[in-house]
Amino acid sequence: MKMDAAVLWEVNGDWTVEEVDLDPPQDGEVLVSFEATGLCHSDHHGRTGDFPGPMPVIGGHEGAGIVQEVGPGVRDLKPGDHVVASFLPACGRCRWCASGRQNLCDLGALILNGTQLDGTYRRHIGDVDVNVALLLGTFAQYGVVSEASVVKIDNDLPLSRACLIGCGVTTGWGSAVNTADVRPGDTVVVIGLGGVGSGAVQGARLAGAERIVVVDIVADKREKAHEFGATHFATSMAEATALVADLTKGVMADSAILTVGLVEGPMIGEALDIIRKGGAVVLTGIAAMADVTPTLPMAMFTLFQKRLLGSLYGEANPRADIPRLLSLYRSGQLLLDETVTHEYKLGEINEAYDDMLAGRIIRGVVVHDH
Amino acid sequence: MKMDAAVLWEVNGDWTVEEVDLDPPQDGEVLVSFEATGLCHSDHHGRTGDFPGPMPVIGGHEGAGIVQEVGPGVRDLKPGDHVVASFLPACGRCRWCASGRQNLCDLGALILNGTQLDGTYRRHIGDVDVNVALLLGTFAQYGVVSEASVVKIDNDLPLSRACLIGCGVTTGWGSAVNTADVRPGDTVVVIGLGGVGSGAVQGARLAGAERIVVVDIVADKREKAHEFGATHFATSMAEATALVADLTKGVMADSAILTVGLVEGPMIGEALDIIRKGGAVVLTGIAAMADVTPTLPMAMFTLFQKRLLGSLYGEANPRADIPRLLSLYRSGQLLLDETVTHEYKLGEINEAYDDMLAGRIIRGVVVHDH
Repeated sequence: MKMDAAVLWEVNGDWTVEEVDLDPPQDGEVLVSFEATGLCHSDHHGRTGDFPGPMPVIGGHEGAGIVQEVGPGVRDLKPGDHVVASFLPACGRCRWCASGRQNLCDLGALILNGTQLDGTYRRHIGDVDVNVALLLGTFAQYGVVSEASVVKIDNDLPLSRACLIGCGVTTGWGSAVNTADVRPGDTVVVIGLGGVGSGAVQGARLAGAERIVVVDIVADKREKAHEFGATHFATSMAEATALVADLTKGVMADSAILTVGLVEGPMIGEALDIIRKGGAVVLTGIAAMADVTPTLPMAMFTLFQKRLLGSLYGEANPRADIPRLLSLYRSGQLLLDETVTHEYKLGEINEAYDDMLAGRIIRGVVVHDH
Repeated sequence: MKMDAAVLWEVNGDWTVEEVDLDPPQDGEVLVSFEATGLCHSDHHGRTGDFPGPMPVIGGHEGAGIVQEVGPGVRDLKPGDHVVASFLPACGRCRWCASGRQNLCDLGALILNGTQLDGTYRRHIGDVDVNVALLLGTFAQYGVVSEASVVKIDNDLPLSRACLIGCGVTTGWGSAVNTADVRPGDTVVVIGLGGVGSGAVQGARLAGAERIVVVDIVADKREKAHEFGATHFATSMAEATALVADLTKGVMADSAILTVGLVEGPMIGEALDIIRKGGAVVLTGIAAMADVTPTLPMAMFTLFQKRLLGSLYGEANPRADIPRLLSLYRSGQLLLDETVTHEYKLGEINEAYDDMLAGRIIRGVVVHDH
């Protein structure tokens, strides 16, 4: 079949909407009509080459849609099922999936290959095989994806909001709820208020944090931060550090969650300074493939028993946590509508990223035509 | 009263045994006759200036002894009680003591001052006030110390072994049991086999680790490592990394515990490389007061969800864990006798440190004459 998709042909190129040939689903795969896709900063990191991958590539890894057809061997999905695409697959069978750590599923090692799980391609432009971002390629009207990459959800949820759950929201929410292990009464600092940061603020709120201090250089995000549950807002770490010292009478924050994609060394030192004895700095960013050399005050790191915690996908189990988060959305406890500041058509995707880079949006969503 | 004590007068000087005047205990203090003291590497770091402190100073912070006299306001101790000195005090009243985190007790901020908790001195040589290491100064026949710095123990235990519990053993044991949270069947790497490392190996063993790989550049420690519970031994991280890859079929270790006092940047990178997805590197060393700039492969840190955990005193609660560890010693499950490779008199303390620096001993103990 033919479909429209946003394709990137080279580093620093623009996204171009093209007609792409899509093969039928093979063993363990499903054909999904993508109804909506979130615009995540990580796809932009792919465009700039910070996050390298094979080209040409159909971007997008936050999607929601409807199963149209299932390939051989697919047991748990049927045409008509609504699904959320998960940027990390979960096979359900490896040691990690078997022990409540689906975010570490061994299939995760394959997500940057650009191909299907079996190493082949389902998308072509003429004679050219086309790669997909993170086994998904949701910047497209349709996708043929592994059943490991999609999670069935209830049919009553708006897909233009559900699409956000498969990456940033869950990463942020889980970075607070699971990795920072926010406890009722905690003081939490969330650095960066984008897709991940707004999820982290909401995770901290749902976990009962007393104070949630958001740090973002874009002062205009203050109002949004408070809408998601922030109690305080600062535009620099220096301002935030003084604020937290004052609020906690010098004890400092229980945790700091760094949601910036491109982590730089000094950010880690600043985050370690804002937490208390025994506190944690959580790192969620996976965009910087280069090494980072933070200056750690080593004796202080141990004397004050600080912790530096990587958090992948918020330590979430997609098959358990995606339905859980959507249930929280339905009951009004997780705000998604409020994160979507703009909706776009696929043809407007370059303008959409311009808006993101200018800090004009929290989350943008592309709603696909069919 | 008069007593003998090993005093350090200047950085890089030798310990000199001198006659010191000791004042009676004041409010909240007790007079203890120290029967034995462990020789910890940290006192040597004080001698070299890595761990700076005021001089002259009576060294020693691992001690066990018998209460001789109690000052006003002391409720829980009486003459004749056997006690272990704890290198970190626990007041029992601050927010940390109140919440099962006695190792973070706010009094800990005072341990490098050299004075009593109230900022005054109990020890003098002529007109010169003499400081003490970590509120204790156990390189002495007697000490006047805060009740917060001693823990009552059963009277049937040999004080020449009990003295080891107040710092290194507990730090090592807890780094495995509490911070690394070793689970039955885990693969654990312990880097460095000194006082902390031998405690870490035993903690990992007691927690049910299947494989315990000890890394130490001193090849002669192989036999001791196995005695404490190590299943494998390597003399370099390169050797250990290849071994762990082979043993775990590439999954790598669940945790790596860095017990080296003077941590250098590259050690952290090597330790991060030897652990699995979601694994932890535990840092126990507090000797390096200077900054360390490890090169962290940042995206990999998050993509593989690695964790870097400071561990102070093994996250132990001295009033609960010192008796617990001594109970394990009594029942034969915690080896202490086997860690003490040499006993010394106070006058032999410089030779004792020469032995430690040459890697000739695991633990040395000074038994005091009275």
